[in-house]
Amino acid sequence: MAFSPFEHPFLSGLLGDEEIARHLSADADIKAMLRFEAALARAQAGLGLIPAAAAEQIAAACGTFEPDLARLKAAVGTDSVVIPELVKQLRQAVGGDAANHVHFGATSQDAIDTSLMLRMKAIHAIFTERIRQIIALLDGLDQRFGSNPLMGFTRMQAAIPIRVSDRVESWRGPLARQLTALNNLEFPVQLGGAAGSLDKLRLDGAAVRAALAEELGLADMRQWQSQREGIADIGHHLSLMTGALGKIGQDLALMAQSGREISMSGGGKSSAMAHKQNPVRAETLVALARFNAVQLSGLHQAMVHEQERSGAAWTLEWLILPQMVMATAASLRLAGETLAQIERVGTPAPGLSN
Amino acid sequence: MAFSPFEHPFLSGLLGDEEIARHLSADADIKAMLRFEAALARAQAGLGLIPAAAAEQIAAACGTFEPDLARLKAAVGTDSVVIPELVKQLRQAVGGDAANHVHFGATSQDAIDTSLMLRMKAIHAIFTERIRQIIALLDGLDQRFGSNPLMGFTRMQAAIPIRVSDRVESWRGPLARQLTALNNLEFPVQLGGAAGSLDKLRLDGAAVRAALAEELGLADMRQWQSQREGIADIGHHLSLMTGALGKIGQDLALMAQSGREISMSGGGKSSAMAHKQNPVRAETLVALARFNAVQLSGLHQAMVHEQERSGAAWTLEWLILPQMVMATAASLRLAGETLAQIERVGTPAPGLSN
Amino acid sequence: MAFSPFEHPFLSGLLGDEEIARHLSADADIKAMLRFEAALARAQAGLGLIPAAAAEQIAAACGTFEPDLARLKAAVGTDSVVIPELVKQLRQAVGGDAANHVHFGATSQDAIDTSLMLRMKAIHAIFTERIRQIIALLDGLDQRFGSNPLMGFTRMQAAIPIRVSDRVESWRGPLARQLTALNNLEFPVQLGGAAGSLDKLRLDGAAVRAALAEELGLADMRQWQSQREGIADIGHHLSLMTGALGKIGQDLALMAQSGREISMSGGGKSSAMAHKQNPVRAETLVALARFNAVQLSGLHQAMVHEQERSGAAWTLEWLILPQMVMATAASLRLAGETLAQIERVGTPAPGLSN
Amino acid sequence: MAFSPFEHPFLSGLLGDEEIARHLSADADIKAMLRFEAALARAQAGLGLIPAAAAEQIAAACGTFEPDLARLKAAVGTDSVVIPELVKQLRQAVGGDAANHVHFGATSQDAIDTSLMLRMKAIHAIFTERIRQIIALLDGLDQRFGSNPLMGFTRMQAAIPIRVSDRVESWRGPLARQLTALNNLEFPVQLGGAAGSLDKLRLDGAAVRAALAEELGLADMRQWQSQREGIADIGHHLSLMTGALGKIGQDLALMAQSGREISMSGGGKSSAMAHKQNPVRAETLVALARFNAVQLSGLHQAMVHEQERSGAAWTLEWLILPQMVMATAASLRLAGETLAQIERVGTPAPGLSN
Repeated sequence: MAFSPFEHPFLSGLLGDEEIARHLSADADIKAMLRFEAALARAQAGLGLIPAAAAEQIAAACGTFEPDLARLKAAVGTDSVVIPELVKQLRQAVGGDAANHVHFGATSQDAIDTSLMLRMKAIHAIFTERIRQIIALLDGLDQRFGSNPLMGFTRMQAAIPIRVSDRVESWRGPLARQLTALNNLEFPVQLGGAAGSLDKLRLDGAAVRAALAEELGLADMRQWQSQREGIADIGHHLSLMTGALGKIGQDLALMAQSGREISMSGGGKSSAMAHKQNPVRAETLVALARFNAVQLSGLHQAMVHEQERSGAAWTLEWLILPQMVMATAASLRLAGETLAQIERVGTPAPGLSN
Repeated sequence: MAFSPFEHPFLSGLLGDEEIARHLSADADIKAMLRFEAALARAQAGLGLIPAAAAEQIAAACGTFEPDLARLKAAVGTDSVVIPELVKQLRQAVGGDAANHVHFGATSQDAIDTSLMLRMKAIHAIFTERIRQIIALLDGLDQRFGSNPLMGFTRMQAAIPIRVSDRVESWRGPLARQLTALNNLEFPVQLGGAAGSLDKLRLDGAAVRAALAEELGLADMRQWQSQREGIADIGHHLSLMTGALGKIGQDLALMAQSGREISMSGGGKSSAMAHKQNPVRAETLVALARFNAVQLSGLHQAMVHEQERSGAAWTLEWLILPQMVMATAASLRLAGETLAQIERVGTPAPGLSN
Repeated sequence: MAFSPFEHPFLSGLLGDEEIARHLSADADIKAMLRFEAALARAQAGLGLIPAAAAEQIAAACGTFEPDLARLKAAVGTDSVVIPELVKQLRQAVGGDAANHVHFGATSQDAIDTSLMLRMKAIHAIFTERIRQIIALLDGLDQRFGSNPLMGFTRMQAAIPIRVSDRVESWRGPLARQLTALNNLEFPVQLGGAAGSLDKLRLDGAAVRAALAEELGLADMRQWQSQREGIADIGHHLSLMTGALGKIGQDLALMAQSGREISMSGGGKSSAMAHKQNPVRAETLVALARFNAVQLSGLHQAMVHEQERSGAAWTLEWLILPQMVMATAASLRLAGETLAQIERVGTPAPGLSN
Repeated sequence: MAFSPFEHPFLSGLLGDEEIARHLSADADIKAMLRFEAALARAQAGLGLIPAAAAEQIAAACGTFEPDLARLKAAVGTDSVVIPELVKQLRQAVGGDAANHVHFGATSQDAIDTSLMLRMKAIHAIFTERIRQIIALLDGLDQRFGSNPLMGFTRMQAAIPIRVSDRVESWRGPLARQLTALNNLEFPVQLGGAAGSLDKLRLDGAAVRAALAEELGLADMRQWQSQREGIADIGHHLSLMTGALGKIGQDLALMAQSGREISMSGGGKSSAMAHKQNPVRAETLVALARFNAVQLSGLHQAMVHEQERSGAAWTLEWLILPQMVMATAASLRLAGETLAQIERVGTPAPGLSN
């Protein structure tokens, strides 16, 4: 039974997200790594580096191969990475002479990082769509309640009256800008070989990489095995999303506190007080924002690689990035749910049509 | 399939720890929350607050009751905490008049925090034992190789010759001091009621709490529902453990790099270079130290509760503390394994018997 | 005497940067806030909101006015922000009817955030130039030593031989990409008024803001008083710079350790060992990278504003952003200095012309 | 002009603390390092390792010597540490044969860390006293208003009525426990020599260290040059203090928001709204709590030393610990000031004598 709140038997009722968790599963990772191995073989065959027949055999095997998970797990215990054992099993599945052409010129990091990028690209497409839905909900609130007066608060004290539109715009702005930023995020292929120099591919290295990127629908970019600002960038944008949603959550919890500024359905129950309605989704948005703000620090620490590859820095990414993705997934889902529960914001001024 | 590296189908081969994961499981949590409910009923019966027969019925039910997990998960989705639904199910299991005495005067946080403390106490007993074993391994290295000369490095540059004993002592010191610190850590019961004032227990509040603590083997302490420095303390000590082991890991990786200072068995394989032996456990110790150093920040952020209880701050703890425990578990296990793989440290000086 | 290592009487010998510190000084801040007040008055006069003569009087006063610092400091002690007292003093300096038009429709945050953006823009121009110089130094190393063989290390262990060019390229890549990213960073004006709605400027709000932005050379953007992802973005890019340079520093310290891979002049002295040459600049690059990685977390925490403006979140930015700037300044300076001290990287292969 | 808000010309009106800043000044550091050098010489003379007359000459010089700061600063630029140059200057001041006995067997870290511990001990005595005063203020509030009813809030929503006493107790508890913890904090001397083995002092090392500790009023402890959990411990306790005070600040800002729960004098002015009273000290307590929560992560990162001494990890401490101390100083001062401004908490229930 999972201990992580993102997939815990009952905490995942609040914090889980099955759609995104699937992309982070070992199964999805293995499938993506096999896509890498298939595409690599094809790219190399296209350039005459390995026999075309071998590439087809490899690609075919990658499409159906089911690795022995227990042996993968045992191997990770000694190798820290899954690829040596996965490639060994894959070679057995391919068989014959073609087996020798599996994973040619590549290293563990090439397959693992490329698998990550394939899945990050898919995840970000989902996140983009979720942000669009949240913006649509905000637009709806604006249309229905935008002209209602609302007390503006600065430094947590009543300041001057504003309109609901003003508050809603402060929620929408960062999300709208984030949409643009996500559109500009690139997900590059990784291909560097043992120490980043594509030593076995010699002069064909760049061409293989370009063909591989094309085949996988990823950006072509020189290897970044020890250049990790792209990972930090992804984490930064995840935390910008949860930060923007955390600010909304904080406001919703404060508005609910006053008892007059907002009406919401579906608050949480208390085990001690039958009368209470707790804005638990709003509060959770704050928790997830602070969680990602904490985690991001680790991705920046992980930029300090030693030499051609740091196992320590790379492992640190593995420990942090997936859960930032899950926290963002939960935040986007909960934000949509809680905004949909809003029945009223502000109070129509007497004598004003809304 | 779990995405977290600590329980991931194959990454857990390196980073998992089944013994500790069990204590963090939903199952262990539920059992501990039921222990809380049983002990609370008995403590209240002992003081005449509820009928003795009801307490026995409740305690008996708590010993055998198996909750409907699907309904718990659904309820957490709206309530954020599991207790309202768990208590509802438990009351159905208890039945009759006794059902009305379940969870009397308590709130969700009382059961959840007390469950956490029960399990943290058990986990720390295991960690204490693992530290003892690591210290024993270090003592063994000292006895076998302590008089070997070793180049001392400061600022990553060769400085003056030291003895292996000097290096080993710098590894052992923080662990030995940590043993003492762990012995002084207290794990207090939580009992405050709806808003911390034990309003329903009136003048008997302190007596019920004392009896509850006694029954559960926890420290008796006035409620700490919004006073979270104890959680930050636990996190601090977890990070001190991983920090001390991370320093050892860093040193081992540097010693392995030189090729002369240390001999170790069992290094990891590379998918690109058959000849390499990677000190993957040592590197992982560094990653886990940096991971916990990052996480600790979140537990300190979570000290800023609003009023009598902050859902945001409390949820942030749930997201962070369990994985710090898992990182510490992995670090203690890996440190033991990698120290056991050391075959030689330093080189006997010519003409010196070792 | 300053305690902060960035301006400490002797630690600033390593960590200080006078050029950048000037932009962060109270003096530069006051001058920039006065530029804001002058430009605001002119923009408002241009739209007929205040008399043209008053605007010229205000602008003239802003050009020469020297505030009473002691009174500013005392006022910050009670108001937390300097603007109420600064505007009061400025009004006295302006005098007459024009005084009533000072700071019209604006709030403290408008002046303070705009001042920050004016200075951040200037600072980033300097940083951009420094990165260019570092890239030029790397290009030089590549030209002189690029074909030298170097042992490639992965997971801190010797892997396969690479060329010096390969290592240098892994240093240059993130910096070159950072140059592009810095070019795309925008520095927006802040103008929202008391609670963000520009209530006093009514329908002219957007026009005043556009004219103000134009006058100050900043980007025009709707107020962002509680939307702080732009600040987090700046911090992210600062940490990407120090992270990229920290990786170079880590490599240089490791290369120096081997004694064969690199020759550098100007290492630091030890008080205990006359023979040592410590690569202190390289090590400091690592420290500064980790420092900024830590700080960034705080800027993301500061995204969770309450309502129209959070004093807590905003103050947290003040505590963190300036020192991230100083750390980046030191890192860029030290990286340039230490790369300039490199006399050789790698060793020419026998029989190879370099 | 200092950029750091803790000593900034006007921001220090809110965030500065001259009493504590003095202990962190270069001047105080130099004086403490000279105390170390004097005490070291005396300890060594007491054990016959250096001539008694030389020790007295050294001690006398340490009492009056004023170093050339400009040369110290220049030297730190190349050496990263001040001691090589300081010792050189001190030897010139001592002169004659005695000069050769200055700093005998010690290294830079011995002097610098010991100076830090001397000043931390003094600072913690002040902090302890400030906590006592805050607790006295809380006791006063409890006596005056403790029986007043107050609405208890959980998850930011009205829960059940409590007494002011209940809220005040949740503020006092962590501070009272922190007092106990501070009493148990130890401040150890540092003496390890070049690489931690006290190589030049041979069998007398431990005796010299014990005498040195005795002379300086510090705890005697084997060298901890690369064992930094003591520094992390200090940071942890600083952050526990600011965290506890941040929770009070958060509550005060929320209570002020309601307009009924509390009356306070001395709120801050707004530049846009003449009517507002901003609880700026309360908000600043929250900012300082989050600041220290962020910083602490860096001290835990700094536990991962390489070998006998890591310049990178040690420098990271210098960048972080002093400002955590300043943040704690500001927090303790502001908490006292804001609690003293409370004129009423809660509202006496009708018909109840208070």
